Amino acid sequence: VRFFEGLSDRERAVFEAGITLGAIYHQFTGTPVNRDNVRVVERCIEEAASLQPCVEDVEVSIEIPDGSEDNYGGYTEVNGRNLKVTVITRCGEWRVKARLEFIEELDYPLMWIEEIERVER
Amino acid sequence: VRFFEGLSDRERAVFEAGITLGAIYHQFTGTPVNRDNVRVVERCIEEAASLQPCVEDVEVSIEIPDGSEDNYGGYTEVNGRNLKVTVITRCGEWRVKARLEFIEELDYPLMWIEEIERVER
Amino acid sequence: VRFFEGLSDRERAVFEAGITLGAIYHQFTGTPVNRDNVRVVERCIEEAASLQPCVEDVEVSIEIPDGSEDNYGGYTEVNGRNLKVTVITRCGEWRVKARLEFIEELDYPLMWIEEIERVER
Amino acid sequence: VRFFEGLSDRERAVFEAGITLGAIYHQFTGTPVNRDNVRVVERCIEEAASLQPCVEDVEVSIEIPDGSEDNYGGYTEVNGRNLKVTVITRCGEWRVKARLEFIEELDYPLMWIEEIERVER
Repeated sequence: VRFFEGLSDRERAVFEAGITLGAIYHQFTGTPVNRDNVRVVERCIEEAASLQPCVEDVEVSIEIPDGSEDNYGGYTEVNGRNLKVTVITRCGEWRVKARLEFIEELDYPLMWIEEIERVER
Repeated sequence: VRFFEGLSDRERAVFEAGITLGAIYHQFTGTPVNRDNVRVVERCIEEAASLQPCVEDVEVSIEIPDGSEDNYGGYTEVNGRNLKVTVITRCGEWRVKARLEFIEELDYPLMWIEEIERVER
Repeated sequence: VRFFEGLSDRERAVFEAGITLGAIYHQFTGTPVNRDNVRVVERCIEEAASLQPCVEDVEVSIEIPDGSEDNYGGYTEVNGRNLKVTVITRCGEWRVKARLEFIEELDYPLMWIEEIERVER
Repeated sequence: VRFFEGLSDRERAVFEAGITLGAIYHQFTGTPVNRDNVRVVERCIEEAASLQPCVEDVEVSIEIPDGSEDNYGGYTEVNGRNLKVTVITRCGEWRVKARLEFIEELDYPLMWIEEIERVER
């Protein structure tokens, strides 16, 4: 598309990785989850996010800490502390691996780029 | 819980059905969906919503109309026009069947109570 | 609408209160918030939720505890622990006051009906 | 933060712009809106998104087409067709202008980078 003419493939792979992480976080946090349905929720996030432009692969892991279900509702919810995501985007020759994970030292669910590599077309 | 002392079981079943429909709509609309992942998204919504208080069963159907995937992204998203939900809540002797569906004559994704029945404890 | 023929006005006010609380929680949790923008976010939730059927008034209070902004991002987000909502619905002669608030003894962001009253038409 | 060591400032500005657009879309689509509350909703999105890392400015415009409020509810909702966003991110010497807008020829709410410029520190 002409909209991406000013952007290199490498930059576009970075941009789309950002979109996908922001989208996942703000679409799915709040979703009720416990040990019984966690795998279904993880797969839903993986398969929904994989549809977005340039996304090659998505891996989602939601941790259900001991005790987090021992409340009135018997479940917890997807949030910035229990959600870990790896997104792989690909644009032309460039592949980007981006991550979302809660980083204790920052007290923040950080989204960052872990790796950028050039691949065979 | 003492919080529900002023409410009859019948009313609580109605209240929880409302919560669950409002929650589903506003949690999951916007989720990327196409023919390939639709069943996973439906199951995720069903299993997540089933965790909420008094919810006995949830059935979700997302319609992917012909052509709705023929765009730049190759997918559509869960929205008020393609999402149909049936929620069954139960509180004491009362069972409520609530629905969400886009009603053309209202031009609106309506949430309503279809049936209230008294059941054996 | 014919869809509500089987429901009393009192029950409909209860149902719509449930919808509105479920909608608010799942639409707005995750929204970035700190002391600077909190009033704007509260008003947005109040005015958006007030558009829903039978809703007469909505009051939202988001608490920003000391230290909750002292992280990498300098902000926190709307969540089940800091969000308090009062929704007033009205249907015919019936007015319902519903609440959302995190209840420590339940370790859960509870939604409940606090009051149902008959009012002059 | 060490997490961004492998990324240039220019790339980080691109990445954060992507995050912010993805976040806005998936956090706020579904929000009830009409002519009466639209400015409050726009400001809420602008001020919430402005809190995210490296974001310098956000402008949001939600169009309420004639007739879009003439339904059972008397309102419409924020969605991919009526939402326009401009996000400005800044990282070191680099400033990025990113956009979200529904593009008819693509039948898709596109997110793209409109401009990258080097600025005085």
